[in-house]
Amino acid sequence: MKLYSAPNPAPNPRRVLICLAEKGVEIQITDLSLMKGQHKEPDFVAKNSRAQVPVLELDDGRTISESIAICRYLDELYPNPPLFGRDAFERAEIDMWVRRVEFNLMTPVGNFWVHAHPYTARLGTQHKDFGEGNRDRWESAARWFDGELSCREFICGTEFTIADIAALTTVDFATWIGLKIPKSCTHLLLWQTRVSNRPSVKSLNTMVI
Amino acid sequence: MKLYSAPNPAPNPRRVLICLAEKGVEIQITDLSLMKGQHKEPDFVAKNSRAQVPVLELDDGRTISESIAICRYLDELYPNPPLFGRDAFERAEIDMWVRRVEFNLMTPVGNFWVHAHPYTARLGTQHKDFGEGNRDRWESAARWFDGELSCREFICGTEFTIADIAALTTVDFATWIGLKIPKSCTHLLLWQTRVSNRPSVKSLNTMVI
Repeated sequence: MKLYSAPNPAPNPRRVLICLAEKGVEIQITDLSLMKGQHKEPDFVAKNSRAQVPVLELDDGRTISESIAICRYLDELYPNPPLFGRDAFERAEIDMWVRRVEFNLMTPVGNFWVHAHPYTARLGTQHKDFGEGNRDRWESAARWFDGELSCREFICGTEFTIADIAALTTVDFATWIGLKIPKSCTHLLLWQTRVSNRPSVKSLNTMVI
Repeated sequence: MKLYSAPNPAPNPRRVLICLAEKGVEIQITDLSLMKGQHKEPDFVAKNSRAQVPVLELDDGRTISESIAICRYLDELYPNPPLFGRDAFERAEIDMWVRRVEFNLMTPVGNFWVHAHPYTARLGTQHKDFGEGNRDRWESAARWFDGELSCREFICGTEFTIADIAALTTVDFATWIGLKIPKSCTHLLLWQTRVSNRPSVKSLNTMVI
């Protein structure tokens, strides 16, 4: 089994690396240079026709892309600690929270990154007004998550799950591109410190983000 | 068990209704009037603090929101026919396809709906140029799915899965708001006809969409 990732990874590869570290599993990792366009070379596109990392390649050649789908597979292979729930309700509830992170928290971050950040200006047409408008959506989502975290330790209850990994990689990337968590969001900030101090997260200390 | 939905539903409630029909399961359904703002009333917000349908309420009062999370729960309760896969690899692969549908196909549709459609103009600030730019993203995604469907019957292989439900509700909604599948996308159009003719989909004949 082999993981195609990228150095100093963006949120998606980082999710898989934290998942592997939580489970104490080491697998072969091949870092592609996105700057050199290695993810667009035919050999790699044959593994993921979206031309994106991360990709997990099994020993029989089958591949899985999409960070959460890869983590879901790893969770079944290495069930301890469980990151996707222990029964039908937990699995559904955690899935719900992952989707809330993606659609409410990650979407404005992605929109801001693509449409308002100087780094991406050279990559395509930016709609600056739209991009800047996502600051409000980001802050609104941060406040909503802050409220949810006022009564529990982790995104989905009393245990660390894949929803925390999805959310942490999102807020860290947001911070890195200039979208800070509002200071009034004390529960969300405490949660960020709490999960950032986990050995799995701290072990990935080579990352810029 | 009780489902909170909406009449003539948008893509998300419709996914759950098709899932239930595929499994031949009937449960109590309460339709909320979104026009009257029933989804914003305190009783309902207590069930889903995002104030959105669909919501599944269990007999013990616990709730699940997010369409795919609800379907994932129903799939475990009523495993035939399986819509989320039979083993770890299938489950990951189907999850990957659901995410590809959401992020590549649904995202431009949602952006166009919110920022370029006349119906939503009165609901908030529209960024028209950005919204209109999503026509190209939609067509590009449609062409990519068309290519993927050139060599198989369903979104994720030889069997109908939740990825087909996610994709069908997306392309039908897209069509309804004025984003048509390009005529050159013959594989995608054939797939749309094929899945639209399934008894589960045809049984929901009261819908506008």
